[in-house]
Amino acid sequence: MNKFYISKSRRLRSTPFTSRIEKQGVSGYTVYNHMLLPTVFKSIEEEYFHLKENVQVWDVSVQREIEISGNDSYKLVQLMTCRDLSKAKLGKCYYSPLVDHKGLLINDPLIMKISDKVWRICIADSDVLLFAKGIAGGKKLKVSIHEAKIDTLAVQGPKSEKLMEKVFGKKILDLKFFNYDYFNFRGSKHLISKSGYSKQGGYEIHIEDTKSGLELYDYFFEIGTDLNVKPGMPNLIERIESALLSYGNDIDNSDNPFECGFDKFVNIDSKVDFLGKDSLKQIKSNGIKKKLMGVKIDTDEINLTKEEKLFDINNKEIGFLRSAVFSPTFKKVVGIAMINKKFWNMKGKFKIKIHGDNKQGVTCKLPIV
Amino acid sequence: MNKFYISKSRRLRSTPFTSRIEKQGVSGYTVYNHMLLPTVFKSIEEEYFHLKENVQVWDVSVQREIEISGNDSYKLVQLMTCRDLSKAKLGKCYYSPLVDHKGLLINDPLIMKISDKVWRICIADSDVLLFAKGIAGGKKLKVSIHEAKIDTLAVQGPKSEKLMEKVFGKKILDLKFFNYDYFNFRGSKHLISKSGYSKQGGYEIHIEDTKSGLELYDYFFEIGTDLNVKPGMPNLIERIESALLSYGNDIDNSDNPFECGFDKFVNIDSKVDFLGKDSLKQIKSNGIKKKLMGVKIDTDEINLTKEEKLFDINNKEIGFLRSAVFSPTFKKVVGIAMINKKFWNMKGKFKIKIHGDNKQGVTCKLPIV
Repeated sequence: MNKFYISKSRRLRSTPFTSRIEKQGVSGYTVYNHMLLPTVFKSIEEEYFHLKENVQVWDVSVQREIEISGNDSYKLVQLMTCRDLSKAKLGKCYYSPLVDHKGLLINDPLIMKISDKVWRICIADSDVLLFAKGIAGGKKLKVSIHEAKIDTLAVQGPKSEKLMEKVFGKKILDLKFFNYDYFNFRGSKHLISKSGYSKQGGYEIHIEDTKSGLELYDYFFEIGTDLNVKPGMPNLIERIESALLSYGNDIDNSDNPFECGFDKFVNIDSKVDFLGKDSLKQIKSNGIKKKLMGVKIDTDEINLTKEEKLFDINNKEIGFLRSAVFSPTFKKVVGIAMINKKFWNMKGKFKIKIHGDNKQGVTCKLPIV
Repeated sequence: MNKFYISKSRRLRSTPFTSRIEKQGVSGYTVYNHMLLPTVFKSIEEEYFHLKENVQVWDVSVQREIEISGNDSYKLVQLMTCRDLSKAKLGKCYYSPLVDHKGLLINDPLIMKISDKVWRICIADSDVLLFAKGIAGGKKLKVSIHEAKIDTLAVQGPKSEKLMEKVFGKKILDLKFFNYDYFNFRGSKHLISKSGYSKQGGYEIHIEDTKSGLELYDYFFEIGTDLNVKPGMPNLIERIESALLSYGNDIDNSDNPFECGFDKFVNIDSKVDFLGKDSLKQIKSNGIKKKLMGVKIDTDEINLTKEEKLFDINNKEIGFLRSAVFSPTFKKVVGIAMINKKFWNMKGKFKIKIHGDNKQGVTCKLPIV
C-alpha cells in the first residue's frame, strides 16, 4: 500500500505527550476525536509481541472526556445510554453504549460517576459533546457540558502491575478491574482506573495536572527499564483478537447494540428513561438480522479502507468485513465482520476479494481464539 | 518539521475519488468529518499559484451533507442556527452559523432548502448529525436525520466557468453566486451550487449518482487540458489570505458568532426560535471581548499544531494565532488570530515565539490584502 503523509494543523490536535512520542520514534498517526493517536513505532507485529509479554505506556489522550455537571447531570447521562446507571457507584467504571432515539449507536464510552452531580464520559471517536448539547438545549436541562482538560496515559501489558507498583506503591494492587481511585505522584493527585484498550491487563491514568503527567510519563521510562517498558499504543492485532470494538470501524450509527453483542448493557426493562428505549424494545421484539462475528482469512495481508463484502460459495452476500489485520499468532488475517442472520449457523465458509484475488475465510466467535 | 504517515482504516473513510487522486499523485492528507481530505500534491505554493490563474478539480467529499426531512424539518434546522431561515428559498445557499444553547459555535455550514420538507446542511468538521439527533430526540420532533450519500467535487479558479461551460453548456453561466440548480451530465442529474472554499470563483457539484460522478471527474481532465486543469484541494495559503475560516482551526466551540465576524448571520431580533437566542442576546448586550483578525509575521515558516500566544512589547498576552502559513505573495507568514479587545485599535505590533525565536508581526484586517 502506498504511504501518505499526515498534514498537521491546530484542528488535528496534538497532546501534551506528542513531542515525547515523536522523540521516541513514532512513525504513524491516525486521527481520533480531532486529535492525533499514534499507530506504530517500528512495526505493529513487533509491538504486538512486546505488549503481550512486557509493559507499555500509551498516549491515549484521544479518549476525550465529556464532563457533565449540575442538577440534571444524571438525567442527561441516562438519557444518552441504554445502560441503567440509576445505581451507579463512585469508584466504578461503566461501559455504556450511547444510543439515539432510533436505538442506533452513537458511541461506546466508559462512564464514571465522579460525585453526586459530576459525571465523565470517556468517549470513542464521535462528538458526544454535540449529542449532549443537543439534548440539553432541546430539553432545557440544568447542566454544564464541556470537554474536560484531561489527557489519558494507559499502562498496559502483563507487567503493568509491577510498573505501577514501583510508582504508586502497593495500594495500586488493590484496585479491581473497572474500578477507579485517586493516587499520588510527587504531591499531585491522579484519577486512575483499572481499565484499558487491551486484554493484557493494565491501567488508565486520567491526567488533569499536565505538568505532573509529563513528569510521570518520563518517570515510567526511567524506573521501568528492568521491566523492558516501551512506548506503545492500542495495537490493531491485539485489539481485534481480543474483540475490543472500535467505533467507526466495527460499529457505527447504522448498528444497534444487540447487533454488537451489547445485550447485557441494554436495560430496556428497567425504569430509567433514555432516548432509544421504545425503539430498542421494538428492535428486540422483531429480532436482529445481523451481528458481529470474528473471521479468519487465508491470506497474509489486507489493508481495509472501507467495509468489504463477504460471499458464500453461491456468491450470495453474507455480510461485511469491517476490521482486519494479519495475525502472527494465527498465521492468517483475523477480523471483525457484520454477518447476516442466515449465515450465523452455517460452517461459516466465505470468499472475499482482496487486491483482485479471491481468498477463503471462515467465521468464528469473538474474541478470536 | 518531521513527517509522519497516516494509518488508513475504515474509520478514516476514503471517498469515491480517493483511488483517482492517489494515481494523480496526492502526497498528504488531513482528516475531516472522519474522512480523508487531500492537502497537497507537489507543494502548496505551486498549487496556490496554479489555483489563482487556472482551474482545479477538488475532491471535497469531506463536506458531508446532513439531510433533515419530515414535518418538523424546518423547525429543527432553525433551532440549530442563529440565521433566520424562515424565508429561505429553493435554489439558494445560506451560510449559517450553528450555535448551542450557550450561543457558542457548533459548525459553520452552508444550508440548502431542497424542497418544502427536505433540508441539507453541508458541514465543516464536527458531528452535526449528533447535535441534530440530540435536539430531535430531546424534543421528539417528527424528522428523519441522516448523512446523505453525497460526495462533492469542487471546480475552482478563474477558469472554472470555462471548464464548466464545456461540460454543462451555456446554462451554467446563468447560475449566480450562492445559488444552486440541477444540471445534466450524460443523462444523470447533478445539483450544482456556485460556491466553494476559495475566492477564485467556482462551483460545487453535489454528487448522488457516484458512477456518473466518477465519469464526470475523468471527463474534466479529458476536456480541460487546454485550460490547464489540475487536481487540487482547498489551499491553505489562498484560504487564509481570503479569510475563509476553518472550524477547528480559526473558530471552535469556545467562540461565539460575533467574535468571528458573523454579525449579519445572527438574527436575534427576528421572530424565529433557535437554541442560543437568549444567550446571544446577552452576549451582544455585554459586548464581545475578543475577535478574529488577520496577522502578518516577519518570518518564512511556521507549522502550527496548536494555538500560539501573541505578546505586545510589554509581554502582555494580546491573543492567539490559530492558523498560519508562509505567503509567497506577501513574502511573510500570514495568519488568522483571536485578538483581545484592548489590542484591536493599537498599531497592532506583536511578538511570537516560533521554534524558540522571537518574531515580529502586525495585526491587520480580514481578508488579508
